[in-house]
Amino acid sequence: MNKDIFFISDYITREKREKLHKHLGCLVWITGFSASGKSSIAKDIEKKLYDKGCISYALDGDNVRRALCKDLGFTKKERAENIRRIGEVCKLFVNAGIIVIAAFISPYKEDRKKVAQLVGEDRFIEVFADCPLEICVKRDPKGIYKRAIAGEVKNFTGIDADYEKPDNSTIHIKTDSVSIDKAGDIIFKYLTDNGYINF
Amino acid sequence: MNKDIFFISDYITREKREKLHKHLGCLVWITGFSASGKSSIAKDIEKKLYDKGCISYALDGDNVRRALCKDLGFTKKERAENIRRIGEVCKLFVNAGIIVIAAFISPYKEDRKKVAQLVGEDRFIEVFADCPLEICVKRDPKGIYKRAIAGEVKNFTGIDADYEKPDNSTIHIKTDSVSIDKAGDIIFKYLTDNGYINF
Repeated sequence: MNKDIFFISDYITREKREKLHKHLGCLVWITGFSASGKSSIAKDIEKKLYDKGCISYALDGDNVRRALCKDLGFTKKERAENIRRIGEVCKLFVNAGIIVIAAFISPYKEDRKKVAQLVGEDRFIEVFADCPLEICVKRDPKGIYKRAIAGEVKNFTGIDADYEKPDNSTIHIKTDSVSIDKAGDIIFKYLTDNGYINF
Repeated sequence: MNKDIFFISDYITREKREKLHKHLGCLVWITGFSASGKSSIAKDIEKKLYDKGCISYALDGDNVRRALCKDLGFTKKERAENIRRIGEVCKLFVNAGIIVIAAFISPYKEDRKKVAQLVGEDRFIEVFADCPLEICVKRDPKGIYKRAIAGEVKNFTGIDADYEKPDNSTIHIKTDSVSIDKAGDIIFKYLTDNGYINF
């Protein structure tokens, strides 16, 4: 049906927006197990970007899974649709010249790759929040691993659903030994060193 | 399943973002028939906001229907899901302190009301792009009315699907007699007069 939707050219290109914002639009995609520190790192980097006057926004389970994707569960197919929608939202933000930080388990390589292709490889920064599963299970701040192990929660990554580690993430952070603050610094430094942010 | 998703408090609130951006986050929602001028008005106001240094972004069929909502058709149920998803995306942008301009036929009152409730009534500005159907049919820049009349396109608003006019839109623009430029000015003035933008 979508052949019946036509294009209108934009006056305000991403480049113009980036000039206004004084930084590029890009997507920092944080993948890793539940309790690996993804959302905390996202909030930390969001704060650091805000303090420098950058326009950024963090997306995670809280503001997406409960909202845009509230109709979706956790089967492989539903996870793919979840990540597809998130990817499309990230693309809108990146086109708006904003630095999006997306913190999602996103366990499948194929889904993450599709997001990278969607927003453009040069605007996609993959961060692997790498924390051994046994430590995440021990942390279990939400008690959800306990419930997954008991079989009360199904398709839970690391318990009865796979996690495919990135082969070649842009930034690899061992979140069992690196603090949230330090992780935020590493990402911020990457953004500045690679010209996403220019001061 | 969503009881298993927990909240983390945000450091950077909408208020802080609005302080940085020097304007409020809000949603300008333009409703009306196809060819009533919605997208053109959206692009015009986006340009005017950009020229004043405001962070804004226009959403329309081009960047949403072909992307986030490409799996959806045009039945009443699918239109509701389309508008629901768009509403959720708008909410993210508004929470990010951005002025979103959404240009969608959005023919049903109930769907539009849900969007208003989602982003907050005080952040929702409904613009009715009011153009008589016969003029839209005559304009028909995409040839789509012709195809709908011939029965080649189904569920097309105004032809074989209803349009419920807003009873009490914030801004009502007769787009058969008011120019795009003037329409953009009217909306821009509303935003400044009502404290969304402050210079």
